[in-house]
Amino acid sequence: MTQPTAADLALRLPSLRLLTDAGDLEHYGRDWTRRWTPAPLAIALPSSIEEVQGVVRWANEHGVAVVPSGGRTGLSGGAVAAHGELVLSLERMNRVLGFDAVDRTLTVQPGIALEAVHAAAREHDLVYPVDFAARGSCSIGGNIATNAGGIRVIRYGNTREWIAGLKVVAGNGELLDLNRGLIKNSSGYDLRQLMIGSEGTLGIVVEATLRLTDPPPSSQVMLLALPDMDALMRVFALFRAQLSLQAFEFFTDVALKHVLEHGAQRALDGDHPYYVVTEFEAPDERAQEAALAAFEQGVEQGLISDGVLAQSDAQAAALWRLREGITESLAPHKPYKNDISVRIGAVPAFLHEIQSLLAREYPHIEVVWFGHIGDGNLHINVLKPESLADADFIAQCEHVTKLLAATLQRQGGSISAEHGIGLVKRPYLESTRSAAEIALMRGVKGVFDPNGILNPGKVFP
Amino acid sequence: MTQPTAADLALRLPSLRLLTDAGDLEHYGRDWTRRWTPAPLAIALPSSIEEVQGVVRWANEHGVAVVPSGGRTGLSGGAVAAHGELVLSLERMNRVLGFDAVDRTLTVQPGIALEAVHAAAREHDLVYPVDFAARGSCSIGGNIATNAGGIRVIRYGNTREWIAGLKVVAGNGELLDLNRGLIKNSSGYDLRQLMIGSEGTLGIVVEATLRLTDPPPSSQVMLLALPDMDALMRVFALFRAQLSLQAFEFFTDVALKHVLEHGAQRALDGDHPYYVVTEFEAPDERAQEAALAAFEQGVEQGLISDGVLAQSDAQAAALWRLREGITESLAPHKPYKNDISVRIGAVPAFLHEIQSLLAREYPHIEVVWFGHIGDGNLHINVLKPESLADADFIAQCEHVTKLLAATLQRQGGSISAEHGIGLVKRPYLESTRSAAEIALMRGVKGVFDPNGILNPGKVFP
Repeated sequence: MTQPTAADLALRLPSLRLLTDAGDLEHYGRDWTRRWTPAPLAIALPSSIEEVQGVVRWANEHGVAVVPSGGRTGLSGGAVAAHGELVLSLERMNRVLGFDAVDRTLTVQPGIALEAVHAAAREHDLVYPVDFAARGSCSIGGNIATNAGGIRVIRYGNTREWIAGLKVVAGNGELLDLNRGLIKNSSGYDLRQLMIGSEGTLGIVVEATLRLTDPPPSSQVMLLALPDMDALMRVFALFRAQLSLQAFEFFTDVALKHVLEHGAQRALDGDHPYYVVTEFEAPDERAQEAALAAFEQGVEQGLISDGVLAQSDAQAAALWRLREGITESLAPHKPYKNDISVRIGAVPAFLHEIQSLLAREYPHIEVVWFGHIGDGNLHINVLKPESLADADFIAQCEHVTKLLAATLQRQGGSISAEHGIGLVKRPYLESTRSAAEIALMRGVKGVFDPNGILNPGKVFP
Repeated sequence: MTQPTAADLALRLPSLRLLTDAGDLEHYGRDWTRRWTPAPLAIALPSSIEEVQGVVRWANEHGVAVVPSGGRTGLSGGAVAAHGELVLSLERMNRVLGFDAVDRTLTVQPGIALEAVHAAAREHDLVYPVDFAARGSCSIGGNIATNAGGIRVIRYGNTREWIAGLKVVAGNGELLDLNRGLIKNSSGYDLRQLMIGSEGTLGIVVEATLRLTDPPPSSQVMLLALPDMDALMRVFALFRAQLSLQAFEFFTDVALKHVLEHGAQRALDGDHPYYVVTEFEAPDERAQEAALAAFEQGVEQGLISDGVLAQSDAQAAALWRLREGITESLAPHKPYKNDISVRIGAVPAFLHEIQSLLAREYPHIEVVWFGHIGDGNLHINVLKPESLADADFIAQCEHVTKLLAATLQRQGGSISAEHGIGLVKRPYLESTRSAAEIALMRGVKGVFDPNGILNPGKVFP
């Protein structure tokens, strides 16, 4: 049998938009990871569910691997096509299909950007509350495929909580219409939940019905400086007990240095090892007084060294930029990213353990810590020294990740909190999932994608 | 090969408690449905996860069907053992195993009653917010197996939302430790979610870590009388827009008649066709004023005929009894139960359609309507006339359910909102799930339970 080509696919689906230029192959063949050399067969850009089904059926017949592709802002290589796969980009399927005022749901195509979802919800005086820095580029389909988390999980949960219905093209080309916006539906296995977070290995999201909610009451943003790592979770406990927290994000002095170099404005004088940006509901004076009281208590207890409460929307945005600008500010340093989580209660012991591990293993390498510490989720970015070759740097980081994975396994944590497994984490999946679980996952994969054409090589070790 | 017996199992697991008396077989072989004659092989009452695994392994070796069993308050026959199955009752595994103040989780064994979970949460000044009338008898394992809903779904969602971790013995006897209390864990397929609502056909829940939350602000309870069915969803929209609703439950005059005959106290004068019990957060005077304003608006618009606001906890309990006492008051009439749902937005049209369907099909039979209308969930109980034989009555009800299922299919609804499919609804599963979905569900079943020993005959048509 000859190798199937893009021309074969074009013959089968004449109206399907297909790209095969070198520039397009490179553009669509990678995500925000930069470790793999893009080498897709072609890029298919369907404009309808039927075209998606047509592509998947053709791929089944010819044994062609398909990589579903959204905004390609992923950090685990889930959307990388480096081995002659057909990239199936959903970017042309990016419209709002409907809004239901009674159900308070928004039905969208998968290629719509998260930011556009936010805007569409706002038009109806409602909010879609999942949010993170890549909002302008990431697609809702990708958010669903990774069960994206972000900066409001502490208040609103992950993407999973907001998916009322999903249309999915399974690996066999069948269209599934899962849950259809019902609040209560105890009628057999919830395959919608199985799809969420499956990274395009079970099916391709072709439509999503998102639950919306009331806008939160007005909020305030505070930046806190902390004297040491132990203060972190104690301040979190103090604030959580007294305020309605919307976000509680931390970063280190090293992260601050990079984000300031990248153009952000300093908000506090002096050098402090740890910082927290927190946002809390403050609809009335009582809530504002509670916030100041919590702050003062923290200062009295020696847990908070300094702080600033935003006095305007502009200042709130400037404080948020200190946290949200980190990823972009680190990009030029080709960071190796760990995205790990433990139970909140396990965070203090875990932080100590990995702090000494990282100090020992990366003595001459800059390590940047930040993350959603109120959810037990920590981002550790290791910056490549200019003198080190890419491959040597990654080899060193993978060695350390192996040690980190062993620590996570002991602590019952997760090797991927919100980025997904993709290509980057698959060697470490066994630190988080048992052999029995992985065997069951393989079985499930075989049920939904019997020919193994959907995102092969991703997720599984 | 001879038939395996309880004696064989006793030989294999000498310390396992086993019951084989006729009274025990009858007691443990049924749930709240009364349609099947219990005929289990024996009742196993394990006291540890290891014993559960031992039973499942033995059952696999000998091809013995196992029916997992909790409080047996189910209404779909999911826990019925009528064909020589081994009942595996979790009732001895009913302890609280731990509480984590930082994670705000409670870890329990599966046989604990929902009410005992509520009490354990309260000891720590927190709440487990899933709640319904069977709270004293139902077990948390059964709640998880059916993704139980109840009276607070409108505010807190279904059981699914509150499960931070699950230990499950899969159909092959393997112990799975799923998600382990993590908030963020994007590491492969979320098998925990797949287990929730699988009615004991994929695995047996042997431990659960439940998320707890802050107690709600103080609330008020109101009983409303409505002039007609159209007012129902309009009052819901009016109240939802202005109040923080905790519950919005409706019932008809026929339901009221039964619950009053069963000893409840009348709270409003006059006869009205529809009633609503609603509970809303009322922490301050402003909220209380908003509630009265909403009520007055409803009266002015002709949507509300009368109402009463509970002035004490005792009166609130008395109003709640009008709704919560319905199921018990109907039990002597051997009701045939439908538990259906549609999207909230589809409720008004759906109510009209099924009202005329039921009036036509049950001209001489009493039909009682009530339910969680704010979630789109409607309970329709058909009461058996004394003159009609059980079998004839059920045959007639099944004929009507077929028509109802066709209506649900057109409206995109569900044949089981919160009771599960079990034995009762399996002939109608295809009204809610497509052939492609059911085929995938069968495939998933084969992965988790390759020998088909877990609750065979349940769920699948």
